[in-house]
Amino acid sequence: MSIRPIFVVAGVGNASGTGAAAARLFSKAGYRVALIARDQKSLQTLASKLSEDGGEAHPFAIPSYAPQDVRGAFTAIRKQWPKEQGNDIRVALWNTAAAVWKPFLEITDEEVKEGLEVNVAAAFAFSREVIKEFKSNELNELGKRGTLLFTGATAGIRGNVTTSAFAAGKFGERALSQSLAKEFGKDNIHVAHAIIDGPILTDRQRSRHDTEWQNDQNVRLDPESIAKAYVYLANQDRSAFTWELDLRPAHVKW
Amino acid sequence: MSIRPIFVVAGVGNASGTGAAAARLFSKAGYRVALIARDQKSLQTLASKLSEDGGEAHPFAIPSYAPQDVRGAFTAIRKQWPKEQGNDIRVALWNTAAAVWKPFLEITDEEVKEGLEVNVAAAFAFSREVIKEFKSNELNELGKRGTLLFTGATAGIRGNVTTSAFAAGKFGERALSQSLAKEFGKDNIHVAHAIIDGPILTDRQRSRHDTEWQNDQNVRLDPESIAKAYVYLANQDRSAFTWELDLRPAHVKW
Amino acid sequence: MSIRPIFVVAGVGNASGTGAAAARLFSKAGYRVALIARDQKSLQTLASKLSEDGGEAHPFAIPSYAPQDVRGAFTAIRKQWPKEQGNDIRVALWNTAAAVWKPFLEITDEEVKEGLEVNVAAAFAFSREVIKEFKSNELNELGKRGTLLFTGATAGIRGNVTTSAFAAGKFGERALSQSLAKEFGKDNIHVAHAIIDGPILTDRQRSRHDTEWQNDQNVRLDPESIAKAYVYLANQDRSAFTWELDLRPAHVKW
Amino acid sequence: MSIRPIFVVAGVGNASGTGAAAARLFSKAGYRVALIARDQKSLQTLASKLSEDGGEAHPFAIPSYAPQDVRGAFTAIRKQWPKEQGNDIRVALWNTAAAVWKPFLEITDEEVKEGLEVNVAAAFAFSREVIKEFKSNELNELGKRGTLLFTGATAGIRGNVTTSAFAAGKFGERALSQSLAKEFGKDNIHVAHAIIDGPILTDRQRSRHDTEWQNDQNVRLDPESIAKAYVYLANQDRSAFTWELDLRPAHVKW
Repeated sequence: MSIRPIFVVAGVGNASGTGAAAARLFSKAGYRVALIARDQKSLQTLASKLSEDGGEAHPFAIPSYAPQDVRGAFTAIRKQWPKEQGNDIRVALWNTAAAVWKPFLEITDEEVKEGLEVNVAAAFAFSREVIKEFKSNELNELGKRGTLLFTGATAGIRGNVTTSAFAAGKFGERALSQSLAKEFGKDNIHVAHAIIDGPILTDRQRSRHDTEWQNDQNVRLDPESIAKAYVYLANQDRSAFTWELDLRPAHVKW
Repeated sequence: MSIRPIFVVAGVGNASGTGAAAARLFSKAGYRVALIARDQKSLQTLASKLSEDGGEAHPFAIPSYAPQDVRGAFTAIRKQWPKEQGNDIRVALWNTAAAVWKPFLEITDEEVKEGLEVNVAAAFAFSREVIKEFKSNELNELGKRGTLLFTGATAGIRGNVTTSAFAAGKFGERALSQSLAKEFGKDNIHVAHAIIDGPILTDRQRSRHDTEWQNDQNVRLDPESIAKAYVYLANQDRSAFTWELDLRPAHVKW
Repeated sequence: MSIRPIFVVAGVGNASGTGAAAARLFSKAGYRVALIARDQKSLQTLASKLSEDGGEAHPFAIPSYAPQDVRGAFTAIRKQWPKEQGNDIRVALWNTAAAVWKPFLEITDEEVKEGLEVNVAAAFAFSREVIKEFKSNELNELGKRGTLLFTGATAGIRGNVTTSAFAAGKFGERALSQSLAKEFGKDNIHVAHAIIDGPILTDRQRSRHDTEWQNDQNVRLDPESIAKAYVYLANQDRSAFTWELDLRPAHVKW
Repeated sequence: MSIRPIFVVAGVGNASGTGAAAARLFSKAGYRVALIARDQKSLQTLASKLSEDGGEAHPFAIPSYAPQDVRGAFTAIRKQWPKEQGNDIRVALWNTAAAVWKPFLEITDEEVKEGLEVNVAAAFAFSREVIKEFKSNELNELGKRGTLLFTGATAGIRGNVTTSAFAAGKFGERALSQSLAKEFGKDNIHVAHAIIDGPILTDRQRSRHDTEWQNDQNVRLDPESIAKAYVYLANQDRSAFTWELDLRPAHVKW
């Protein structure tokens, strides 16, 4: 039997959102799942749940998204599932976001710095590890070495009132994804960026809205529907790579 | 047994490209297929092939893409598969393009006019019939009434040397798709636009390139890979509609 | 004394808007002005006014924006101010728009067709005459042969609810301007496109709003301010051509 | 006689490029000029030159573009030209760029961090000081409190091979400029972003190219032509603000 490919996801939060949904779907699709985030407990719970459901998942908690900590996670993944034993990292998802929504004059230097570190510098560190892993892979049956996915946002394509800090980070992340898509396409590495243009039904959003809103699929995104997009993208063959797609609920004004 | 939904595709050409591939995939996925194009013979051959393979397809040849002819096709579809018997048109694909690639000063008034008629005015007529059909549908299990797809091109997002006439038409078609996506999202009608950013492996392209190129999945798009994107889009639920995605071969410079 | 260069503007309406303001500013800047529109009376009045103010303007009324009528206007301009006498057309402004704002299902075939003809096909015909003229010019002191300007709109970059027909035309016009900018830059012909992203203070807008709105420069564009942008663009030297800029009032939400 | 308004420019380099050209043009236009950069000697030389030519300029060298150093420069400017004496900062230009052009896998954590600090975090700090100054101004005769300009680049709108780090910073800066334009338009503060899409004739570029290239206005931008765009933007009245324009030489392929 062939060894299962690895799906790495960074940014799982409290496991109620897009990262966790992607973990579940790739697990069902036959991937081993490496979970990276800062909240060890949520990671452990999610990993256990995925394993109960027949998957094989492992938590890789990191103290911060500083480059060396992101690298540390990959070292740990490789300890857990050595490359020499045929374990290929084939899909990776960068799903973190430090969203600061504030009037510009209230944003501190520290918040600007942190936003850039978590949204951009950490994405560089994560991408570097992923691209190096992909480059060591053979072409798979789709003619590709790996798929690197980014969860973007409206703020990645449009600055707006009170979004200056958040937009700067998400624009930067989008720039990274486009640059990588162009630089590594020739190596059959697929890089894609999803613009999430609406609220996602996470625990945080649930706590802010009533049941009617929560149940109304027309107004907020299901994390699982986003995850389905990621599975679709990972399954695109080399003749037709998507760099970017947008995703929004049917009734959202845009 | 439930009645099969209908997939309508306009622009099948000689049945070697995207339109025909989409017809095949939606047929396999359980759709009845209505084929619209000007070349009756190719339509008939494709329809027979789809039926042999267990599908149910019907050709609707039209003399031109003038609005009244496009409307005529829908009248014929309704005669073939009456709405009263529960036949819903659920997915439609606008896949025509009259590509004029010429130095600007050599483009005639007639070519400008024809490009606008085939790429834009006909797309309006097609969309009108489709949207009217969709509005008469109930929500399906995905929470939508129908999915209208457009095959766009690089020329739809970027004018270039020698593409003035083609780009004007494709920009216009893209504008239509975005306007419809916004106007009819609230009716749970999904409108999507695919930017095909590279050469598609059609018979025409085959005749222009050697076997090596034809076999190199890194440099041209498989029509079937585009069709898979359309099936994915049609299967998106109402919580996460994509308006636009791009598709290009791994090694294409962009 | 050197012969004055010619500024051609198509789309002067009732002479209360952008076209007329541009005519005034280029007239003051030392250009002869050729006025093209369908309303002969307004043209005549504006031409007389410009001449009274020390300019030299001439009306060239056309029965329609059909390509042959647009060409007819240029023949008449050349009869008035022959090239052989050293008259160069140096700046041209395409300023027409047939705006249809309607729910998609209410837009008729005829309205689609007319929108495409006036917004796109006529722009092609106009541009052809202008580019041919420019190609026959020597480089001027700015290192360019001529400047072709387009008055675009929000609808040229974004489709929206009820703008499908208008957006299709304005997208197409923008595509044309970008294609021409790229194709003829190497001939030192400058093509630029202004995105007017807000209401312009024309007679039509005056009639729709109260005096407060009319006097509030924060909420609507002065035609003269747009015209100043055109003069600036015409004065850009060949080392720094702008293809596109946006213009909007300070308080408009965007 | 009215007191002269102040123009602040950050990023003057060795005084051969855009920042210095803008300093000269705004000085000629009657502005006092505050020069911010890290190279004290170049600043001093340029300030002296501007003063010799009848202007009034002052160097404000800073040890780094760290937020506190940027703030320090504004404190020094206010010491030099106190607000209480009626000195208004009316125009500001953010003109720095730490361009890293490298294959992605060769870019270090440090280079990523520095790029984000110089291109984005410092731009936030600069903008904060500028916006606070503008908010304390009365409306001028153009109906605005001030104009904040950003020198952007192709890399600000398009990621590419070897531009990942540079593009991330320039995208971020562009996001900031758009957010500010939207947030402070209602305060009659004008924020604009110029996309410089080609090589600028600076000393560095001179050293890389032969005399033919240097003399060919068709292939590289004159710093002074960019500066003219900035003067034009600063002179736009509140009824017609431009957020973004592109600038490129006539013969550059794009």
